[in-house]
Amino acid sequence: MGLKPAIMAHSPARIYETAFWVTPSKGRGIVRTGTSPSCPDVLQARYPFTTLLHQGRIENVFISDIEKRGYRVQRPWTISGFESSSHDVKYPIAVRLAHIDGTASEVVRTKYLFSGEGSRSLIRKQLDINIRYKEPPTDVWSVIDGRVRTDFPDIKMSCSIHSEHGSVMVIPRENDMVRFYAQLPAARHGSTKSKQAYTEETQQLLKKALAPFFIEWEHVEWSSTYRVRQGIADRYGVDRRIFLGGDACHTHSPKAGQGMNTAFLDSQNLAWKIHMVERGFAHRDILDTYEHERRRVANALIEFDNHYAKLYANGPQWSTARPSAAAHESLKSESDFSKAYVESRAFVSGYGIRYGKNILNWSPDHPATSPHFQVSRGTLAPGGLFVTADVTRVEDANLVYLEQAVPLNGSFRIMVFAGQPSRASSALRDLSQNLGNGNSFYTTSQRPDIESVSWHEKHNPHSLLFTFCVVFAAKRSEIDIDEHVPGLLSRYRHHVYADDRHCGANPTNQLAAAHAKVGCDAQRGLVVVVRPDGYVGAMVRLVEGSGTADALQQFFTAISAGTKLPSS
Amino acid sequence: MGLKPAIMAHSPARIYETAFWVTPSKGRGIVRTGTSPSCPDVLQARYPFTTLLHQGRIENVFISDIEKRGYRVQRPWTISGFESSSHDVKYPIAVRLAHIDGTASEVVRTKYLFSGEGSRSLIRKQLDINIRYKEPPTDVWSVIDGRVRTDFPDIKMSCSIHSEHGSVMVIPRENDMVRFYAQLPAARHGSTKSKQAYTEETQQLLKKALAPFFIEWEHVEWSSTYRVRQGIADRYGVDRRIFLGGDACHTHSPKAGQGMNTAFLDSQNLAWKIHMVERGFAHRDILDTYEHERRRVANALIEFDNHYAKLYANGPQWSTARPSAAAHESLKSESDFSKAYVESRAFVSGYGIRYGKNILNWSPDHPATSPHFQVSRGTLAPGGLFVTADVTRVEDANLVYLEQAVPLNGSFRIMVFAGQPSRASSALRDLSQNLGNGNSFYTTSQRPDIESVSWHEKHNPHSLLFTFCVVFAAKRSEIDIDEHVPGLLSRYRHHVYADDRHCGANPTNQLAAAHAKVGCDAQRGLVVVVRPDGYVGAMVRLVEGSGTADALQQFFTAISAGTKLPSS
Repeated sequence: MGLKPAIMAHSPARIYETAFWVTPSKGRGIVRTGTSPSCPDVLQARYPFTTLLHQGRIENVFISDIEKRGYRVQRPWTISGFESSSHDVKYPIAVRLAHIDGTASEVVRTKYLFSGEGSRSLIRKQLDINIRYKEPPTDVWSVIDGRVRTDFPDIKMSCSIHSEHGSVMVIPRENDMVRFYAQLPAARHGSTKSKQAYTEETQQLLKKALAPFFIEWEHVEWSSTYRVRQGIADRYGVDRRIFLGGDACHTHSPKAGQGMNTAFLDSQNLAWKIHMVERGFAHRDILDTYEHERRRVANALIEFDNHYAKLYANGPQWSTARPSAAAHESLKSESDFSKAYVESRAFVSGYGIRYGKNILNWSPDHPATSPHFQVSRGTLAPGGLFVTADVTRVEDANLVYLEQAVPLNGSFRIMVFAGQPSRASSALRDLSQNLGNGNSFYTTSQRPDIESVSWHEKHNPHSLLFTFCVVFAAKRSEIDIDEHVPGLLSRYRHHVYADDRHCGANPTNQLAAAHAKVGCDAQRGLVVVVRPDGYVGAMVRLVEGSGTADALQQFFTAISAGTKLPSS
Repeated sequence: MGLKPAIMAHSPARIYETAFWVTPSKGRGIVRTGTSPSCPDVLQARYPFTTLLHQGRIENVFISDIEKRGYRVQRPWTISGFESSSHDVKYPIAVRLAHIDGTASEVVRTKYLFSGEGSRSLIRKQLDINIRYKEPPTDVWSVIDGRVRTDFPDIKMSCSIHSEHGSVMVIPRENDMVRFYAQLPAARHGSTKSKQAYTEETQQLLKKALAPFFIEWEHVEWSSTYRVRQGIADRYGVDRRIFLGGDACHTHSPKAGQGMNTAFLDSQNLAWKIHMVERGFAHRDILDTYEHERRRVANALIEFDNHYAKLYANGPQWSTARPSAAAHESLKSESDFSKAYVESRAFVSGYGIRYGKNILNWSPDHPATSPHFQVSRGTLAPGGLFVTADVTRVEDANLVYLEQAVPLNGSFRIMVFAGQPSRASSALRDLSQNLGNGNSFYTTSQRPDIESVSWHEKHNPHSLLFTFCVVFAAKRSEIDIDEHVPGLLSRYRHHVYADDRHCGANPTNQLAAAHAKVGCDAQRGLVVVVRPDGYVGAMVRLVEGSGTADALQQFFTAISAGTKLPSS
């Protein structure tokens, strides 16, 4: 999305590691049992840390970006109701908007309605969609943000502390602030205590939990208490016109920092699909994949959250009822906990998310049946994220992060890993020719203004739905775009890359490190269809003849036809 | 300075390589003879590319930063004259300012006056300082900025083209623009031709020089002609109160992009020295090092420029007068040219600049005579830039670029490479204790508000002139700040680092790669005094006892006393 620089300009805290602290089973106070990376090397994360920043600042980055594009978020307005009508075919939904102070209201007719209204969603209520909760809420947590003085050595780290006085999480924030989560006895929730009293109780608890280290408060910025309650909506929308996302359809503990992130990814998942439908390319049926894909993530999140929260609540077996429990007991539980933490990183970082098979994620059940489709290659599989890889752009010798080469602009990115330039030439010529056929998905999705497209257009010279990248397993100086990239593919000069960069995790494989990641050698090419949201849709072998183009044609024809998978 | 994100937010072009093109001695048109990196690996540049952006945008980044700090650049005002007066001891210079439209004027009394007014500097004229030119100007160049359509394959690269029709430089810019420099016959300069005519002549020349490739203009943004004239002022200032910088004291061809950069570095060099003097720490004599250091750079720049310009003007021996010159002749000249290019990169990138010995750059001639001073270690020597190195901050496990760890805030950075934590403990304790002595440079430069310094102050808890960093040759998890960093050094928690990162150029030496760069092993420590502008001032061995602190004391005492080196 290109929003990273604006977010990082706020100098957010970066968490590279989490530290685990416990009260030793024989003893008082707390000791560090170890640390664990935010993004273990195996994930090959582009940015191997967690970024901590006030949600309001992140939202402002999005709002500014929206405004740069000529749109405006109107505030403070709310939705007071809506009606669907079959009379208006183009804009079937009428939404009643009301100014929050009651002074104004209006009705807007729309094609789609997305509820990002949070857990008390009016749209969900009007649709009579139920939230199914996992179990009644029990744990009560207190959260407090501010600036402290302390000699606790890991105050700049993310910490999980299991003390004899209770469980605490430490999360560093921007501007030397810190957030603490502390577990309170359940019975105290709903009491008549004032917020101030809760804050002071939490501060007392933290003082005890962090002992023998001291902690003093310079400033409390914000504090609150909440109960952990995991729930998920029965449905994510109706009529392929009205959709729920974020807290409106799934709720969970905020501690893993997944609330805002999951909400963003919900709407991003839906947005590009609506784009494909509204451009007339994809069948409206594909909108069902929104719930199919995002419910799976919400379920996994709630399961993880539930599991993690329980481990947290139980903690190591130090409880005062068992003051003489064996040391082993405590360490075993703690190791369960940090094991759960490590396992969670693939999920929490996003790199471990894998969508199930459907019309957008190829599988042997898919209506596209060419023998050239691949079930998995290297670390890739349909439904999973594309790899991170450093490559060199041929036309200007710039270092490029391949996964970010094409901005998030609603287009499929067709990544052609071509191997050696000389070996690939016939296959590339055949691919290029077949893509250019009058009936191909590429030709039929041509942009209407193709005659007046700028000479300098880099991503969408022919179609607003597709961008091609060609990656060669060769040094930059050995690649001649005019010679090695034929036909319509040559129009994507900006996206011709040399796979000649050293790849952090694999220094022995300096040449063609990106090819290796996608399971290619320099001889056999591969075409990876990357969906507009960065997930792999399909993988097809690069072969001479029409095989590769035919397979792509099958895949995109199925998306246009709206065929359903037998299993979905 | 922390201005990089704001500059990079403009998406400037990045030049990683320059391509060389010539007309082959037997043949027409042009062919590529090779490419050369902007920053060869040997430089170990942090950002191994050249950044191209309109000067006005870069200046605006500086102006915004000045405004954020509560100051404002008043425009359009000019200096109409000034007087020095010994009556006012504190503000001995009276400067007459005038609004450009003549409607207003005022007199400002000041401690210092810096002329950054460009080559027609009024201040220089009033001081009667002469510019000494290398030789009379001969070459005439035309420069043209704009957007083109072309099939020249290296249009996104920096290119040096020696065609049978003339010499051309291609410089890519932001927003798909490109800058061309083209050499015109000298006789045409000063003719009565209109600017439009020059632009058209240049466009014609480019058309011929780039053949067989086509070039068409979409838009000309700006164009101009100029003569190359290398000159340098006889003096860089008077009275240690009035100084010249930038084009006011040195002029040269703009093609290496060194005009603005050299001017920035002139003023940066002076600024921190004035800071040291005005804080009462350094003797006013150190201001003489401004001219000593920066004249050397200007001389080197002019020499390089002169040499490069001549090579350019002569080019390979293709001239039409010798249409049948041997192929060898042409290639030999071209290789001279690209060799000069390669040699220039250390200088142009800044990594190759080395200031001479003076009171700020230790040498055996320096009045500080401790045997623990080091003439050079690893790639380091006094007067040269500090190394680039990746380290891990111990308190938060963040990746840190060591050379950027302390912001440019006018402080010396004392970098302690301590080797293994256990071995270093006595030496560090001794250093810490001796720094804390009542008479040490560190104690006597204590900030006046030391009692009220924030708990969260990271860089200057005790002194506004010094920041300490301690780097251990150990894994982060093996370092315990409270145990391994004693006394006053422990107040710099934020700047305690583990030298445990993979270091690009040296994958086999994963542990202690930064130590290796500064010529340390894990056993023998080194203290590097890095000046506020990032150049090395002195290097002292880290030893047990008072030796290290004594050597530092000698070095900084000399700076305070204003002693002169015999040679300077």
